[in-house]
This record gives sequence, C-alpha cells and structure tokens, in this order.
Amino acid sequence: MRYSPEQAHRLAQRLAVRAGASLAVADSLAAATVAAELAGRPALGFCHLLDYLGALRCGRIAATVEPRLEFPAPALIRLDALGGIAQLGFDRAFDELCHRANHYGISLLAQHNSYTAGELGYYTRRLANAGLVCFAATNGPALMGTGHCREAVYCTNPLSFAAPVSGDSALVIDQASSATAFVNLRQAAEDGTPIPPDWALDRHGRPTTDAREAINGLLLAFGGARGANIALMVEVLAAGLTGAHWSLDAPSFTDGSQSPGAGLLIIALQPQLLAQDFTTRLGEQLQRLAEKGIHVPGRQAGSPDIELADTLLNELESASHDPA
Amino acid sequence: MRYSPEQAHRLAQRLAVRAGASLAVADSLAAATVAAELAGRPALGFCHLLDYLGALRCGRIAATVEPRLEFPAPALIRLDALGGIAQLGFDRAFDELCHRANHYGISLLAQHNSYTAGELGYYTRRLANAGLVCFAATNGPALMGTGHCREAVYCTNPLSFAAPVSGDSALVIDQASSATAFVNLRQAAEDGTPIPPDWALDRHGRPTTDAREAINGLLLAFGGARGANIALMVEVLAAGLTGAHWSLDAPSFTDGSQSPGAGLLIIALQPQLLAQDFTTRLGEQLQRLAEKGIHVPGRQAGSPDIELADTLLNELESASHDPA
Repeated sequence: MRYSPEQAHRLAQRLAVRAGASLAVADSLAAATVAAELAGRPALGFCHLLDYLGALRCGRIAATVEPRLEFPAPALIRLDALGGIAQLGFDRAFDELCHRANHYGISLLAQHNSYTAGELGYYTRRLANAGLVCFAATNGPALMGTGHCREAVYCTNPLSFAAPVSGDSALVIDQASSATAFVNLRQAAEDGTPIPPDWALDRHGRPTTDAREAINGLLLAFGGARGANIALMVEVLAAGLTGAHWSLDAPSFTDGSQSPGAGLLIIALQPQLLAQDFTTRLGEQLQRLAEKGIHVPGRQAGSPDIELADTLLNELESASHDPA
Repeated sequence: MRYSPEQAHRLAQRLAVRAGASLAVADSLAAATVAAELAGRPALGFCHLLDYLGALRCGRIAATVEPRLEFPAPALIRLDALGGIAQLGFDRAFDELCHRANHYGISLLAQHNSYTAGELGYYTRRLANAGLVCFAATNGPALMGTGHCREAVYCTNPLSFAAPVSGDSALVIDQASSATAFVNLRQAAEDGTPIPPDWALDRHGRPTTDAREAINGLLLAFGGARGANIALMVEVLAAGLTGAHWSLDAPSFTDGSQSPGAGLLIIALQPQLLAQDFTTRLGEQLQRLAEKGIHVPGRQAGSPDIELADTLLNELESASHDPA
C-alpha cells in the first residue's frame, strides 16, 4: 500500500489514539513517524511505531501526559517528559528553543524521563530547516559495550548534527555510537542474515556473526577507543546533564510497564550571527567535498510517498488494540 | 633535565620571546606548553613548542598581535586571532565565556584566523576546572582523508569534551578524528617504527605501514563512515561557524610565512543550572563505568615535574634564534 504523507500521518495518529494516546501525543508521534519514512529511515518509521504502540498499551509510555517546561536560565530549557514520548516535549519547546537561539545566539534543551527518542535526525532536521545549526544526543536502556567492556553499559547512544545549507536540504548527520543501530541488528535477526564480526557479542560476551545470538547479547561501540569515548560523551550529555537515567539504569523500551526514562539533549545556535554567509559558504564546501568522494549525509530528498507492506499494516493494527 | 612547572613556564616563555613573541603571546604559549606536559601529552608540549618557535620566526604566527573580541549576541563571543596563536584569544575571552555560561546557561566562543590550536584538551580542561561542561572543535591544514576520499581534505579535526567531577580531576576526552594524531605519525617516522595499516596512506593514496611514507601522504579518519562524519561535523563547527579557512584552504603550519588561519569553536555550559547534583552523580557513574572496564580519560593526574631531554633542549634553543 502507498500512502501520501498526509494519509500516513492520519494512519499513525489513528493507531496511536487507539493504543491509548491523547490526540496531542498521537499527533507528535505521527509527525515523527512520517518524517522518518520520508527521510529514508523506515526502520525508525512505521516499523518503530510498533514499539510505541506496544509501549502505549503497556504503560511504558504515559499516554496522555503533557510535558513540564522550565527555564532555569535565559538560554536553557528544561523538560520533564513525565514518562511520555520525547517528541511531544520537543514540539512544546520548539518555538522557545528557536527564539532563544536566535536571540542569545545559542540555546539548549535538556529533557529527561521520556520514552526513547526514535530517529534523532528528526529533531535536528527540523531545527536546521528553521535556520539553526544544532547538535543532539540521546540515550536509553543499555544495549552496548565497548572493546574493553564486554557488558552492556550504554544505549546505542546516537548523536546528530545538522546545519542549514543554502539552495539545498540540510546537512544531517545522525548516527549511533554503536557499530550498527539496534534496528539494523533486529532486522538481520528477523531476516536470518549474518552480521559483521565487529557489530556485536553474544550473551556470553563472545564475538558472533549470528544476529539471533547477538540480539540476546550486546552491540559494540564503533571505532575502537575513540568510538567508546563518543559513546561516553553522549552518555554524559544525554543522561548526566538532563538528569535522565544512566543507560545502565534505564528500564527496557520493549518490555515491562516502566518508562525507560531516557534523556535528550539538544543545542541549537544561529549561525548567521557568527558568519553571515554561513549557509552559502557551507553549501559550496559540501559540494566541493562531495566531488572529492566525501559522503555528505542528509542532502538527498526521500521519496514523496510511503510504502507499507500488508504484513506490517496487520501488525500495526493488531499492536494498537490486541491485549499486549 | 627536570623542571618544575614554574621553571618550565619560564623556559618556554624565554624561548618564545627570543623567537619574537610579545610577552603576552609568550606567556599564553608557555602556559599551554606546560599544561600539555603536565597532562601527560609531551608530543603537544615542548616537542610541539618547536613548531611554534619556527612559526614565530617565519611569520606563520603573528608574534605580537592582540586578538579582537566581539559579542554578536549575548551568549556568543567572536574572536579574530589576527594571525596569532589560538591560546591568547582563549585567555582574553576566558572570563567572559565563563561569565556568560554561568549567566545565560550556555555560551559559545568562535575564533578564526589563528595558528593551529595545539592540545585541545588544554582549553576544555580549564573550563571544566571552572565548573563548566564544554565541547571544543578545531581544524587546520588538510592532512587527512577518509575511506572514500583518498586525498587530504580535513585536518586531523580533533574534538574535546570535558566535564567537572566532584572530588576528582575532570573528565577530559580529547581525540583526533584521524585514526592517530599527526604528532604520533611524526614520532613513528622519526623512530622508524611501523604503523598499523589503517592509520595512513602514502603520497600515491596507497595503504602503508611505513611512517616515513605516510608522512608524505595522508592520515585516515578513524572508525569508517561514522568517524568520517565526526570529522565533517568538526569541520563545519571549527571552520564553517567560525569563518576560519576550510582545512582544504589552510596554509601549512610547518612551512611558509602564512598563518594556517585555523578555527576554534568552544561551547561551555553551567551544568548545575540543569542538574544540581551533576558533579557528584557524574563522579559516581564514572567510578561505576571504570569498574566495568570503561576507560575514563582525564582522571589520572600527570607528573608534577617535566623531564626534557638534552637533544630537545638544544633543538629548542636553536629554533628560537637560528636563522629559520
């Protein structure tokens, strides 16, 4: 089945409402779901909506709460998601975050106590589309170890960085600190395809190329000691500064009735205050780098339509109203 | 020869003044040189001072300029180093950066037109010691390619992240986006020791384990596509936002009479405004991670003394006054 973005939004919203979400929560979640699909990240779109629907029904997402917003300093926004989804807090804070970044030059949003954030590029892309350069970090339950720590101590701890580019869509980097994203491992386990040896360990802490073994084990950080440091930096930003659970202490996002209590930290700044020709100059430089073989993420537009398989549609329908 | 920090400072200052530096420039440079030694990074201490002395004598460092400071928005500091060293701009802006981070919650410093920044952890460590969480990025002349771009398009593009920790020295991450730092490659070339195959390419773009071939070729980014994205993020922050030269356009830091025109971007924020127990909670969590095998960089104190070999001392003396 093919859906226009509007049709897909209504579908996601209806499913979320049926799973117990308030209209506001459902609307926020639907927007993020459709945006992930349009950005070419289907594993974080309707596939991931399945996780949200289950979480709404089981209480891992507080289905009807409004996040609490505070301003502890002129350029700081503090959000308590109160166990709800991360996206609603961002929606409620978005205008203030942009306004304060434009006025003070830079502004920060720190949210705790939410469900896992989903596609992190969703947040940064929106800010880049509003003309801001931004950085985001988030965590969640522990799924990942490092070369020197063969037990899960971090979530996949993604970071995202986005910048507006003149005459183009934005530059958007969005990557896990793990060698691969959890959703890719889960997909490989479902498909039964082997995985590279540096992606994950089995539950005994041994290297494995079998995704089904790895799914009961743990992911590994990318890039050796430097990648492990990136994961640590994300952890301090996303959990330390926000007051969220450390990944080690965060409840599962797929089981039980407790919120993962994840953290989300976003820094946004107005580049034109620093360099008036920023977007033009960046556009030219990205073009130059691309011509030399550098991959510039986020420049390609996604498909205008969303295709959903019947099996996924059936799963979504049943996840939104069957007994969990 | 062994030196106390004070003796080492006076030595570095004297050498810099003899190479043409103003007292202010020499003092800033000496502080950074000694700090790198005390932090256990001798390749960025007196060894690297050799590069500064040569650059002072040849005009790659404007030896007597005062950086120009602007405040384009309440939480933004813009610095033009006017071809001088990066450290003096930082010294001149330090109090304002701390004050604005404490007042607005977060603040940003963007410097362009400087010599390469030296040890990046020097800047972030000082801010962490002032109670701030901070992130820094810097660039310089192109020395590094990626898996998909076998020519040098980025400097080693380091990032640093530091945070204050109660009852302990700070957490300090300071790492190049290259698989190894340039100074390590140069050391291996001098020692004639082989290097791992993923560190560098020769001047024909071919993999090599010979450091002397690699020194005429280029470094490689760490961690595959994700590491290449980190290098790109650093480039946009350090050169795009500051208005500094892109790495591709930056003159050499070891040859010629032109400033590399490097960029330095620092973001500092006051964690206690977001989470009052931040430093205590972080200290406990770092302890917990360390017990599980995670390497926590920056916690160990360096040696209280600095040992300098006679050969290095001779080189330093001659670099500060011989014809360049």
